[in-house]
Amino acid sequence: MQHKRISVFAPASVANVGCGYDILGFALHEPGDRVIMQLNDTGKVTLDRVEGDDGLLPRDPGKNIVSAVVNYFLKKTGITQGVSIELYKQMPFGSGLGSSSASAVAGLVAINELMGTPLTREELLPLAMEGERLACGNAHADNVAPALLGGLVLIRSYDPLDVIRLPYPENLYVGILYPHVEIPTLEARKILKTNIAVTDAIKQWGNIAGLVTGFCTQNTELIGRSLEDFIIEPVRAMLIPRFYEMRKIATDHNALGFGISGSGPSVFTLCQNKETARKILLLLQELLNKDGIGSTPYLSAINKTGPLVEWIN
Amino acid sequence: MQHKRISVFAPASVANVGCGYDILGFALHEPGDRVIMQLNDTGKVTLDRVEGDDGLLPRDPGKNIVSAVVNYFLKKTGITQGVSIELYKQMPFGSGLGSSSASAVAGLVAINELMGTPLTREELLPLAMEGERLACGNAHADNVAPALLGGLVLIRSYDPLDVIRLPYPENLYVGILYPHVEIPTLEARKILKTNIAVTDAIKQWGNIAGLVTGFCTQNTELIGRSLEDFIIEPVRAMLIPRFYEMRKIATDHNALGFGISGSGPSVFTLCQNKETARKILLLLQELLNKDGIGSTPYLSAINKTGPLVEWIN
Repeated sequence: MQHKRISVFAPASVANVGCGYDILGFALHEPGDRVIMQLNDTGKVTLDRVEGDDGLLPRDPGKNIVSAVVNYFLKKTGITQGVSIELYKQMPFGSGLGSSSASAVAGLVAINELMGTPLTREELLPLAMEGERLACGNAHADNVAPALLGGLVLIRSYDPLDVIRLPYPENLYVGILYPHVEIPTLEARKILKTNIAVTDAIKQWGNIAGLVTGFCTQNTELIGRSLEDFIIEPVRAMLIPRFYEMRKIATDHNALGFGISGSGPSVFTLCQNKETARKILLLLQELLNKDGIGSTPYLSAINKTGPLVEWIN
Repeated sequence: MQHKRISVFAPASVANVGCGYDILGFALHEPGDRVIMQLNDTGKVTLDRVEGDDGLLPRDPGKNIVSAVVNYFLKKTGITQGVSIELYKQMPFGSGLGSSSASAVAGLVAINELMGTPLTREELLPLAMEGERLACGNAHADNVAPALLGGLVLIRSYDPLDVIRLPYPENLYVGILYPHVEIPTLEARKILKTNIAVTDAIKQWGNIAGLVTGFCTQNTELIGRSLEDFIIEPVRAMLIPRFYEMRKIATDHNALGFGISGSGPSVFTLCQNKETARKILLLLQELLNKDGIGSTPYLSAINKTGPLVEWIN
């Protein structure tokens, strides 16, 4: 008997989205990770293959995020099932694009589909968040929620978990640039302050309210002028080469806005069309090239559907 | 020749609206203040009559907020004109309902109409904010903006000033209770902290994003569960008698939410219909009566139009 086998692609995502630290994120069409999973008779979860990570990810099924979340799934559903996993990393990690989220979501959607979808996508979310805790010490949801649910997602509250898919203008286009410098997420979180001035907090929540209003009412100008982050960006920007020059290039060339993707070093620019985003990415690459810093560009609309079951048989 | 004469009513307003400290406010239909104004030939701005204030407001035209904002208007427009002002206070002050805003807005709309509307409502806003600075030391906009523009207003930014009228579900009804205890706005602002924990700020901006999304997408349940204020309310609630008992009564009786109006002591409950708001107000009054604390209730939908020119001749 041929055991059931599935291929799932799960997308990268942009967390924070300017001023929405820890509460906003959206999914991209590319890059992302692919998991191929097959049921087996061993009763064990095995990690048979990991590619595209330069050998850097754990091969121990207890430590690798994909096998870990599959085990969370089996425990949660009370299912006993052997599973063979192959992980094809197709995106950089430590890039600020939700690499661990893409892997975890691909793994969870794969096992859920193979088992006949006992859980909804929303029910998979806490399991994906546990994967984030394993990967970076904090069960945040601003990458896993968009990667899993697709679209633009607000995490209104963590306790209780309250996740809302927001409307947004269909014409938005995202340019991503991943500069080839290293900023581990843990370090990027460590340099943040634990206390902030109320006056800064008020500016921040004015912008968050404006940003969300812009998305909900399809007001792209309001989105653009609301993206600025007064709290996190001023601290993290110093870890990213030529951040403010890149911002100026983006805004000088009709971007709606520019900011750090997650904890960086990737940056994103939100634009009204693909051509604008493409042109800005080329200029940003040129700028970093002058310093001998390589970079990878990605162009994508906001990905409304999230993970994709590529085939199942 | 009969000089032109006008009567303008400007409404009270609820600032902050739960978690939206300094950035959100909405106008009410009642209470409010009335200004009757007449042009004259003296070349001077005079304050001929002030009623309804128990003699507590300044009679000096340089210090009274209505004559002050009329002078700001004349200076701004370069108009030289004598004006006689009568102010009929029809709402309590120090109540947290934007009393000074209602007076300032009534005065500004009256003089602007008498002069043939040289300024738009939006252009009157900075002048009304200067009135707020005179009245309470801070040029905040979360009362004057809704009182002047009507509806539910977001002040996204103060510098530059960026004010956005938000959509909201038409069926919302507001119950206001003004307990007869005194909390001067200046004092209420003084007890606030100047620094807050980032973790609390994140909870707050999650709620603000949820609240604004609820308003924009007509999701009353989301509005209800997003109103909670983690930063300001815990400090100010202690100045309001039986605040948490009042909240429990409201939520036990189907209120969407309950909070402090402005800096208090007035409280508001947001409901899905008038009957719910009326019933809750009666129960709150009963509760405060037990302590011998009198209170004034107001029932109102959100006032979409703002100030009202009652007559001009």
